[in-house]
Amino acid sequence: MSNPLENLAAAFERFPGIGPRQAKRFVLFLLAQSEGSRTYLADTIRDLGRMTASCPHCFRWFVRASPSDPDTQPCTICSSPRRDHSLLFVLEKDADIDNVERGGFRGVYFVLGGTVPLAEEHPEQFVRIRELLARVEQDGSRKALSEIILGLSATTEGDHSRLLLEELLRPLAAQFHIKISTLGRGLSTGSELEYADPDTIASALSARR
Amino acid sequence: MSNPLENLAAAFERFPGIGPRQAKRFVLFLLAQSEGSRTYLADTIRDLGRMTASCPHCFRWFVRASPSDPDTQPCTICSSPRRDHSLLFVLEKDADIDNVERGGFRGVYFVLGGTVPLAEEHPEQFVRIRELLARVEQDGSRKALSEIILGLSATTEGDHSRLLLEELLRPLAAQFHIKISTLGRGLSTGSELEYADPDTIASALSARR
Amino acid sequence: MSNPLENLAAAFERFPGIGPRQAKRFVLFLLAQSEGSRTYLADTIRDLGRMTASCPHCFRWFVRASPSDPDTQPCTICSSPRRDHSLLFVLEKDADIDNVERGGFRGVYFVLGGTVPLAEEHPEQFVRIRELLARVEQDGSRKALSEIILGLSATTEGDHSRLLLEELLRPLAAQFHIKISTLGRGLSTGSELEYADPDTIASALSARR
Amino acid sequence: MSNPLENLAAAFERFPGIGPRQAKRFVLFLLAQSEGSRTYLADTIRDLGRMTASCPHCFRWFVRASPSDPDTQPCTICSSPRRDHSLLFVLEKDADIDNVERGGFRGVYFVLGGTVPLAEEHPEQFVRIRELLARVEQDGSRKALSEIILGLSATTEGDHSRLLLEELLRPLAAQFHIKISTLGRGLSTGSELEYADPDTIASALSARR
Repeated sequence: MSNPLENLAAAFERFPGIGPRQAKRFVLFLLAQSEGSRTYLADTIRDLGRMTASCPHCFRWFVRASPSDPDTQPCTICSSPRRDHSLLFVLEKDADIDNVERGGFRGVYFVLGGTVPLAEEHPEQFVRIRELLARVEQDGSRKALSEIILGLSATTEGDHSRLLLEELLRPLAAQFHIKISTLGRGLSTGSELEYADPDTIASALSARR
Repeated sequence: MSNPLENLAAAFERFPGIGPRQAKRFVLFLLAQSEGSRTYLADTIRDLGRMTASCPHCFRWFVRASPSDPDTQPCTICSSPRRDHSLLFVLEKDADIDNVERGGFRGVYFVLGGTVPLAEEHPEQFVRIRELLARVEQDGSRKALSEIILGLSATTEGDHSRLLLEELLRPLAAQFHIKISTLGRGLSTGSELEYADPDTIASALSARR
Repeated sequence: MSNPLENLAAAFERFPGIGPRQAKRFVLFLLAQSEGSRTYLADTIRDLGRMTASCPHCFRWFVRASPSDPDTQPCTICSSPRRDHSLLFVLEKDADIDNVERGGFRGVYFVLGGTVPLAEEHPEQFVRIRELLARVEQDGSRKALSEIILGLSATTEGDHSRLLLEELLRPLAAQFHIKISTLGRGLSTGSELEYADPDTIASALSARR
Repeated sequence: MSNPLENLAAAFERFPGIGPRQAKRFVLFLLAQSEGSRTYLADTIRDLGRMTASCPHCFRWFVRASPSDPDTQPCTICSSPRRDHSLLFVLEKDADIDNVERGGFRGVYFVLGGTVPLAEEHPEQFVRIRELLARVEQDGSRKALSEIILGLSATTEGDHSRLLLEELLRPLAAQFHIKISTLGRGLSTGSELEYADPDTIASALSARR
């Protein structure tokens, strides 16, 4: 017969960054909570699917205004008249959006769903490349898009993904006069010259102004 | 209106060792799971109270053989005829038991529920002191107990708790001829003399053999 | 009477990043070396002053071609015809030069000697501000300088120093048509969007291209 | 022609725990010191051999009372009438002595010079095994030794060395009625039960009292 303590620990072990020891501590923490706290947590987890949706425009997760809303309803950012819809920021994952918002960006987003693994023949099975091209074609054809910012990580996989996207987006960009840009590289806040890597210094030098 | 994504992140932030960023990643992780996975996790959390109980003898959490079992049913260790019930290991928390089991201990346990805060006038409000004294009196009076091992952390609060428990247990120990012992101090596995603190070296010296 | 083991440990404790324990390990390491190794190390340290000089142009430390060279002899970089002498990179310390060289820079340098402490009324007592102004005036008046790159750390003190230098250099820059530039800010190599701070993202956004 | 800055950095790179970057920072630090400071450091390093000696009894490094003392002069601990010379603490290295002194030990020492590598056929080429046996034989034969404490690290190599020394010392110990003891194992100061390894818990259990 299955052991609910072990089952729950095993479920928590699948959470990002959680090892066996911390998974057990989560279980002991929940055991020490009130019945009411546990029920609240359980209900919130169960209703997640009913209360949230993936935006059909940008693919980020958001809370529906009402559970009865149709799935075609865009998210609060995509439907806001106060955002600049001509500026499309392509990023890897939902968690990046918070940071870009804090950086002061006021355009709209597209969540790629990750980076493209190196030497992968079918990248469209990993990230939303087809969906991005469709979005750009649609927005571009009605002259609603002026710039696509490829906001990928400054890592090998991020660079690989960026080069691939640039290549795939180039024909549409030419057709609809859309600029493709990438985030500036250089010294990040708090970094010292002595500990910067040569690539970063080369970028910071060529981006000097 | 409340936001279920933020509510869930706030609930995860209360988990031990989890900050705001990781709490959000947990939410995004769950959003990416199937409806079925989320329902399974929610059900396991909700049923935790019904499926588990705090043992009335040792106070550790365990899985009931059947949800209809009475609350007075002891846990599998406390009810096992293969354990040495004359040897009582007093420890701070459930999570310690796994380690002591792996260390080869085959007696029984008592979970104190923590250490006693320093300069606390009512320690019995924090840890199960009254319950421990009752247990020792009961087991002692039927000559079922020969030794109490105070297995507390080698920290200031652990030492404080140990001294307090020794004082409180002394009359019962004298009355029922129960030995009170504490875990040996010394070099722990993997440690080098050069990096050991003077207290540990003094303990290791006096415990040499 | 003084103890040479303790004296030496105390001297090593003044080395950057060295605590009392490692200082002692250095002494024990030297004790275990041969007499010859120690004499070699001692001689190299003693001759440091005689063999090296601070370049009168850029103020970096370098090895003299001959100990009998006059102190007015510039360093190998400042006297090289293969460097672009119209491009002056102002940096905090000698240790930064290696990194900038690896980043591909082929102009010349000026070592400021640190950053200016915040709210310091006499910054010229801390860093080579007067020397920098004299150098720029001299090079500018013979039309030998086209750009000054302020390559300071992306920290609060680095920014403070940069603003101060910009203000002090502005009149000379206007008079001699010298551009003043600063290193580009943005994502540094290896960094991910999710973990970047808002300032860095804002810089990366405004430096996009 | 050789470069004294690089030579000195290379010498510092051989220091324990020092990498190329920190070695360079040491050189720049010394360049920024006064001529007098460098000369003082150089003189202290050069005179190390003349001012210090390895004690012929315990093999620790110590400062000679006078450079003209013969090499057969024992160290201050070995020649102190206030130490208990019947209690011999065998340890790996000089750096361990400070810690054992702070732990309150008042006997005498023997510095082994390291641990015996596993599967090493000629351990006497690595550590002072022959010297230890000679010392024990000499002290034992004049009934000056009552206990040898094997104070090795609680690591695999430390345990291996301890077992080997126990075997080699056993005949002399039996002949001269010398007790061989090892340091107690258990929880070290500051450690919590939850994070202790099973070996440490097993030791702490068997050393309880």
